[in-house]
Amino acid sequence: MAITRDDCASLDDNDPLRSIRDRFVLPDGIVYLDGNSLGPMARNVPTRADTILSEWSSRLIRGWMEEGWWELPLRVGARIARLIGAAPEQVIVSDTTTTNLYKTLSAAVGLRSDRSVVVIEESAFPTDIYVAQSVARRIGGELRMLLRGKPVESVLDDTVAAVVMNHVDFRTAEIADMAAATSAIHDAGALAIWDLSHSAGVLPVALDVCEVDFAVGCTYKYLNGGPGAPAYLYVNARHLGEATQPIPGWMGHADPFLMENEYRPSEGIRRFLTGSQPIISMRILDAALDAYDGADIAAVRAKGIALTDLFIELVDDRLGLEVLSPRDSDRRGSQVSLRHPNAAAVYETLVDRGLQGDFRNPDILRFGFAPLYVSFTDAWDAVEILAAVLGER
Amino acid sequence: MAITRDDCASLDDNDPLRSIRDRFVLPDGIVYLDGNSLGPMARNVPTRADTILSEWSSRLIRGWMEEGWWELPLRVGARIARLIGAAPEQVIVSDTTTTNLYKTLSAAVGLRSDRSVVVIEESAFPTDIYVAQSVARRIGGELRMLLRGKPVESVLDDTVAAVVMNHVDFRTAEIADMAAATSAIHDAGALAIWDLSHSAGVLPVALDVCEVDFAVGCTYKYLNGGPGAPAYLYVNARHLGEATQPIPGWMGHADPFLMENEYRPSEGIRRFLTGSQPIISMRILDAALDAYDGADIAAVRAKGIALTDLFIELVDDRLGLEVLSPRDSDRRGSQVSLRHPNAAAVYETLVDRGLQGDFRNPDILRFGFAPLYVSFTDAWDAVEILAAVLGER
Repeated sequence: MAITRDDCASLDDNDPLRSIRDRFVLPDGIVYLDGNSLGPMARNVPTRADTILSEWSSRLIRGWMEEGWWELPLRVGARIARLIGAAPEQVIVSDTTTTNLYKTLSAAVGLRSDRSVVVIEESAFPTDIYVAQSVARRIGGELRMLLRGKPVESVLDDTVAAVVMNHVDFRTAEIADMAAATSAIHDAGALAIWDLSHSAGVLPVALDVCEVDFAVGCTYKYLNGGPGAPAYLYVNARHLGEATQPIPGWMGHADPFLMENEYRPSEGIRRFLTGSQPIISMRILDAALDAYDGADIAAVRAKGIALTDLFIELVDDRLGLEVLSPRDSDRRGSQVSLRHPNAAAVYETLVDRGLQGDFRNPDILRFGFAPLYVSFTDAWDAVEILAAVLGER
Repeated sequence: MAITRDDCASLDDNDPLRSIRDRFVLPDGIVYLDGNSLGPMARNVPTRADTILSEWSSRLIRGWMEEGWWELPLRVGARIARLIGAAPEQVIVSDTTTTNLYKTLSAAVGLRSDRSVVVIEESAFPTDIYVAQSVARRIGGELRMLLRGKPVESVLDDTVAAVVMNHVDFRTAEIADMAAATSAIHDAGALAIWDLSHSAGVLPVALDVCEVDFAVGCTYKYLNGGPGAPAYLYVNARHLGEATQPIPGWMGHADPFLMENEYRPSEGIRRFLTGSQPIISMRILDAALDAYDGADIAAVRAKGIALTDLFIELVDDRLGLEVLSPRDSDRRGSQVSLRHPNAAAVYETLVDRGLQGDFRNPDILRFGFAPLYVSFTDAWDAVEILAAVLGER
């Protein structure tokens, strides 16, 4: 029997995460399925913005110590650590995902200085490829591409220093097997760097258990940190004694206020810090992370699977579009990508009709299902709008 | 005849910049002379913070284009360009000063790849030294120190690729001669990178006229952008065709939304962009820059000289402390540094008594005179507090 909107409403009624939706400001009249690009604002953000502005205006320079700004990269990092399977003191929030990839990949090749090949997937987010290319060139080495659909073993040998992997493919939402790939990379004597931009906050991530070497990710997608919110990086504790990064700064110095001319890296993750971080944006990210309070990642994942399964079923029943994302939910992140020959134009019409997904060149429509605030009736309504728009074409 | 507080009040009455002070929130009961570390909040900031939060919550992903977030690094960069003597399209706001120095210094040594020496002043801000060290090591080259008090010519030869200069010394406020030093550096065939962190906003800076190659600076000191506000970088237009930077990202790509696997740098200054910038912090910086509307930099500089001259005169008359900053106002930035053997303890007592300056290891008390909001009576009151605290010791 075909699914009805009432069925979806009843799924919402029984959703254990249902009340978390109220933690966000969601615009009226829009089905927002683009949290995989930019998460919405949490309701507590304006108050927290007032707080940081008040700290700044009243405490001025003393805010750095008395209001804890100095410790924010580590403190907010520890909150993200919990979401990505990392024991504390291995994660900082700072800079951008790209800069963090540059830092960690540089650190990785530094730890494997007898090797000169950097591997990245040809399907990786393009910026990651640019950075890998830059680092490979810098060490006088070579960039080797892991072709789509090939196992990582196909490109590993004893010349490979490091492999950059995307945990969830930004086009298709396919999940890479972090445990298996990291293990294969280690067996070849190389180091593994994972980009978690499309997985953190919606999938269980187990960096420590998988013995991942380094990881990076953004905070403005499923973590809802706001436009361009500072990114994070993870360094496995076993590397923290030896790993060095290429952009040393006084905030990462062992004793910053001595203002020594010789750089002595701090103990621990702090050595990956560079310059002063945008505290206002970071406080707002900190507020946004409250939305995860009491939300078990296993429950978030279960709802993500249910939402995307439902959406795919409705697409199959009513639209007959090609589903680019894996049909096996174990291999699919919290996103469904559809193919359409006129995807760019369809995307614009969908927005006009109140469905905000996004478009990726050349023919991909992406829909993100962020379980903290997307409902089952959202999935239904999205397909309604899709059906109407496609029916008119 | 000795100066009185009434004399200072009358200087304030006749100060053409006087009304600009009202554009800032200044805490009661504190003489704030630490704008050379963190500028105060401008009054228009809370409203602008509301605006960006409203853009985010209502526009969501479409804010990037429809609210102009995408163009902010260039648009705010153009506003800073005006303050540092740069024609537009040569400045972007992004990342941190440290990362920007890393990018520009890397670009500079890339343009002089037949040379391997990087020069920096031994008196430079330590982070700048760490970055110069890192870049020199990366190219298999050497870091050469310009000793305090020596002319830049003393270290120049045909092996020098690039020289990093601090426009205003962070300890002493001494101004370097940008025109002369840049010319000498060019005569030796090297490139000049200037750090403007302690000069932008309070001194006339003439990057284009001096034919400076690259420049960087922070925005949280005299530009009042807020704690850890994003930094800026300048690339002289004559280098924009060839210069490349080591952290390529999709925002600097010639056609970012094609999402190509091959990096093709954008035309112009955009190629120095890397990842998504913290838009909320950047909007607040944008608001803060309004404080410069109608404030001619020559008038700001004239007031800065008058304030620091007055302060030094009062210090000489009443305290007899060693003035570390140049007595010649032409050679002194908008800061006066004093020496005291127990500077750290004195600093803390001064704060308790309502004078916020700062302390730099080992024996320096720094006082910043930001002409937009510091008054002549502030200078008087600061010396009163200093006299009381030192008198008790």
